Amino acid sequence: MALIVQKFGGSSLESAERIRAVAERIVATKKAGHDVVAVCSAMGDTTDELLDLAKQVNPVPPRRELDMLLTAGERISNALVAMAVESYGATARSFTGSQAGVLTTERHGNARIVDVTPGRIQDALDEGHICIVAGFQGVNKETRDVTTLGRGGSDTTAVALAAALGADECEIYSDVDGVYTADPRIVPNARKLDKLCFEEMLELAAVGSKILVLRSVEYARAFNVPIRVRSSYSNDTGTLVAGSMEDIPVEEAVLTGVATDKSEAKVTILGIPDKPGEAAKVFRAVADAEINIDMVLQNVSSLDDGTTDITFTCPRADGPRAVELLTGLGSHKVLYDDQVGKVSLVGAGMKSHPGVTADFTEALRDVDVNMELISTSEIRISVLIREADLDKAAHALHDKFQLGGEEEAVVYAGTGR
Amino acid sequence: MALIVQKFGGSSLESAERIRAVAERIVATKKAGHDVVAVCSAMGDTTDELLDLAKQVNPVPPRRELDMLLTAGERISNALVAMAVESYGATARSFTGSQAGVLTTERHGNARIVDVTPGRIQDALDEGHICIVAGFQGVNKETRDVTTLGRGGSDTTAVALAAALGADECEIYSDVDGVYTADPRIVPNARKLDKLCFEEMLELAAVGSKILVLRSVEYARAFNVPIRVRSSYSNDTGTLVAGSMEDIPVEEAVLTGVATDKSEAKVTILGIPDKPGEAAKVFRAVADAEINIDMVLQNVSSLDDGTTDITFTCPRADGPRAVELLTGLGSHKVLYDDQVGKVSLVGAGMKSHPGVTADFTEALRDVDVNMELISTSEIRISVLIREADLDKAAHALHDKFQLGGEEEAVVYAGTGR
Repeated sequence: MALIVQKFGGSSLESAERIRAVAERIVATKKAGHDVVAVCSAMGDTTDELLDLAKQVNPVPPRRELDMLLTAGERISNALVAMAVESYGATARSFTGSQAGVLTTERHGNARIVDVTPGRIQDALDEGHICIVAGFQGVNKETRDVTTLGRGGSDTTAVALAAALGADECEIYSDVDGVYTADPRIVPNARKLDKLCFEEMLELAAVGSKILVLRSVEYARAFNVPIRVRSSYSNDTGTLVAGSMEDIPVEEAVLTGVATDKSEAKVTILGIPDKPGEAAKVFRAVADAEINIDMVLQNVSSLDDGTTDITFTCPRADGPRAVELLTGLGSHKVLYDDQVGKVSLVGAGMKSHPGVTADFTEALRDVDVNMELISTSEIRISVLIREADLDKAAHALHDKFQLGGEEEAVVYAGTGR
Repeated sequence: MALIVQKFGGSSLESAERIRAVAERIVATKKAGHDVVAVCSAMGDTTDELLDLAKQVNPVPPRRELDMLLTAGERISNALVAMAVESYGATARSFTGSQAGVLTTERHGNARIVDVTPGRIQDALDEGHICIVAGFQGVNKETRDVTTLGRGGSDTTAVALAAALGADECEIYSDVDGVYTADPRIVPNARKLDKLCFEEMLELAAVGSKILVLRSVEYARAFNVPIRVRSSYSNDTGTLVAGSMEDIPVEEAVLTGVATDKSEAKVTILGIPDKPGEAAKVFRAVADAEINIDMVLQNVSSLDDGTTDITFTCPRADGPRAVELLTGLGSHKVLYDDQVGKVSLVGAGMKSHPGVTADFTEALRDVDVNMELISTSEIRISVLIREADLDKAAHALHDKFQLGGEEEAVVYAGTGR
């Protein structure tokens, strides 16, 4: 008998019919002899509808109250899932984030889990109940106010609960049935992976894979919680994310996949004096504005006037703010470009395959794609290219490294929270 | 500076526009120099919509989960009211029943408040905030599970909070602007009362007035909390419910009003042996089935066979169940009649006006209405008549005791929770 945590996203819960299907799966797991904790997001469009109501009463809704409002969404879906579970002959108890002991920082709308004290969940499990826990929400450890965790928060709730309860596996259900070697909507012969390690999943999440949110993978790695990515529409065993790169024998280390990202913009600051402290001023200003930067390049200093140029990428949503900020900083000229895309290759096998970078750049050359920025980690190569070249580049890399399968992948619509 | 508790029902909160109007009123009270706690029900049809969803996933939803589901309704409306309040330049904090310290019995769907520990509300008031508290809900003192209070629960929440906080007044806002001498939809010249005492309001609530739910008036009387019944659509000062009958000088005691009730049915059991214990068996059986009985009549024993008849009234919804129960009890013949109505006259002045019963019966005789059952208290006369005669009887009594005003009353549509 194992303890399984199952997480269901909003698209898996968008109707009474879908809720009943989810409940059937939960009860089947219980009847197979396991203890089950199900973490559920809000139903389909609930969050958007509540946000719309909020805007109608206050164009700039206070964040504490916005969290109070949005957390009603999971309360509804979780109670409904519990009711549906009982209709299949099992007993269920639903719990809010607060009741489940999900303690967070105070930052409304984007709180972080600081501790999980699942005493009530453990008691209910010991009494033989299936536990249904509201994802995405917690309670401020200091003030006891209700908080939300930000994007992908339900995944993080599931992993954090699995860690606190010592669960054997955390299953993340959505509308995709696993982690693929590339986005199947771009590369039709993308292949589903059976298994990858935490580091590979972290790199994929960091460079644009939407399957799992970065924070939940970091949490899973820190507490060594195996994650299984599955579809709520099929019985496929999905993809297991577990284990450290260090434990993979060299001969088994492979290249995992290609990821693409259209969410970033490129900012270039020209004519920065090439002396200590000048670049730091730029990055401090950006950091103080809470803008995350990703790739960074500093040119070799110009011999003519002792100045240099700095280029970085940041989320497109923050781009205009970054430009305004940097323009106000001094007499620098600032260039902005949001027609860029990032394509990345990830895999633990990169460490033991010295020719990867050469193959990577040749593959792009062969399809006439120009590279504007390059950044690498131990198990990843990313390049910034024109956004219009992104699909072509992904195809070329996927083929070059022979990542594809024989069949076309099945693609489902929709996304979860 | 006073502390005012204001309660707003679902019809006062049915849209973003109405929520903003409510918020404006709350802020106006605050700006007049008072501390304000607003207790809000769920928006308009939310509860019905949630119940509908519940039925779709489980025809017999478990009550614990039903409470978890329904309490999302107040969470939504309260957060929205708090947001709207902030848009009018005040600061607001919304609280769930649990956060407000509303502790209840364990009976899901119909819990009773056993204690209120509003420490967080008092702290927020002390910091200058307007507090918005979810009505209708609390938390089981033992298990910490979320509960709901049943019909009119938000009124009770407001009064209980007002008592616990030592508030100066509890304003109950709905779509009627006060307590009338009769239902204005039946008696067009019904007059709004400026003031009545707790006992009069209790009698009116007990005999069919829907203005305030009985439990909230009992609570207000026990803790001596003045209630003001007001409309959220006007600035009328409404009706004050305060003080005890004992404190009204005899010369000021008047007749308060006429109430009508079409919700009861009449059950008659024929041929009960006229000896000790036989009637008790009947009432014990009905009580064990949790059916509330109202008026009771036992006939004079028949000399022929030493049997008697017992007649009582109970809610129509419970009528068929009562008949089935009593028929199964023995060889009695049971008659059922749901074409009955009850008309009542209430007023502290009844004590000092000996001719009231005579006037009452003559008024009904004059319009040819037959009385089937009579019951009285110190300040009330009620009679059971044909339902079809109810409006005629109410008119006749209202006229006979000169309760009417000069103008026709204004009638608003809709009801609150």
